[in-house]
Amino acid sequence: MKDLTLSNVYQLLEPGPVVLLTTIGRNRANVMTMSWHMMVEFEPPLVACVVSNANHSFSALRTSGECVIAIPARKMADQIVKVGNTSGRDIDKFDAFGLTPRPAARVNPPLIAECFANLECRVTDKRLVNTYNLFVLEVVKAWTDPTQKNPKTIHHRGFGSFVVDGRTIKLRSKMR
Amino acid sequence: MKDLTLSNVYQLLEPGPVVLLTTIGRNRANVMTMSWHMMVEFEPPLVACVVSNANHSFSALRTSGECVIAIPARKMADQIVKVGNTSGRDIDKFDAFGLTPRPAARVNPPLIAECFANLECRVTDKRLVNTYNLFVLEVVKAWTDPTQKNPKTIHHRGFGSFVVDGRTIKLRSKMR
Repeated sequence: MKDLTLSNVYQLLEPGPVVLLTTIGRNRANVMTMSWHMMVEFEPPLVACVVSNANHSFSALRTSGECVIAIPARKMADQIVKVGNTSGRDIDKFDAFGLTPRPAARVNPPLIAECFANLECRVTDKRLVNTYNLFVLEVVKAWTDPTQKNPKTIHHRGFGSFVVDGRTIKLRSKMR
Repeated sequence: MKDLTLSNVYQLLEPGPVVLLTTIGRNRANVMTMSWHMMVEFEPPLVACVVSNANHSFSALRTSGECVIAIPARKMADQIVKVGNTSGRDIDKFDAFGLTPRPAARVNPPLIAECFANLECRVTDKRLVNTYNLFVLEVVKAWTDPTQKNPKTIHHRGFGSFVVDGRTIKLRSKMR
């Protein structure tokens, strides 16, 4: 895994990929699938996300204040869906679905070795947690896998329908 | 424009498309380009978004508490970028870039006739506006254009780079 400059994190999350979120609860590490996230600030990179209080990961995230956002490429689609269809209450999803946990540098939840990017995060604002299950996270360390070139991400459209990244176009945008 | 059931709104925003946001300020309607948005609740559909206080639209949104999220297809890429590169302080962007405003049903800011979906929104939570420019919106009315079949959206990756929707895949997800 290669270090990623924090100011470039937004380029990974802004296009809206399905991501995996790892946490550590009372017993063991867990992982869930998540599509409700957005960038909030470029640097330090802040990310908002919704983790439903129906999810097993919710209490781990709220209590520990830490998580890793791991970004899977299209080839992991099968694992992504299996992670989304199961609960860490019942099984060890890393073991069940062949995901390899790797120690993170600055937080306790693990990176996922198979993902092309991993973002170590700390919860920085809980004001909207009670009303909307909405957490604001700060990305404190970011990694990419240089062996995965131009990974295609997938985007959730509901009920098992996903759009895969198509071609990249260049336009004369002045926005970063 | 055809009515869209509010519980289906998430299918449009969850994949992370670049959207247009219309507001009405002191003088006239304005439109900006936005990629920092996410779903917060299915029904009534709640959406969080970040509108920088450097944007001309910020004060209109904060003061009026209303906006329309208009979703453009790939064929509007050129207009999307022009909207993002200019400010409503200087020009009438609807006029300058050939966007047709249409009256909304429940809010004052206009729909954009060329977009394949339009979501009429009211600001429902401002608690994170001062800290992060983060607004929580409720979608109170939604429209789609039935003549635009399977529109491809675009996703911002920074510095003029955009990914266009590729093919749709079906997986056995139990998630809605």
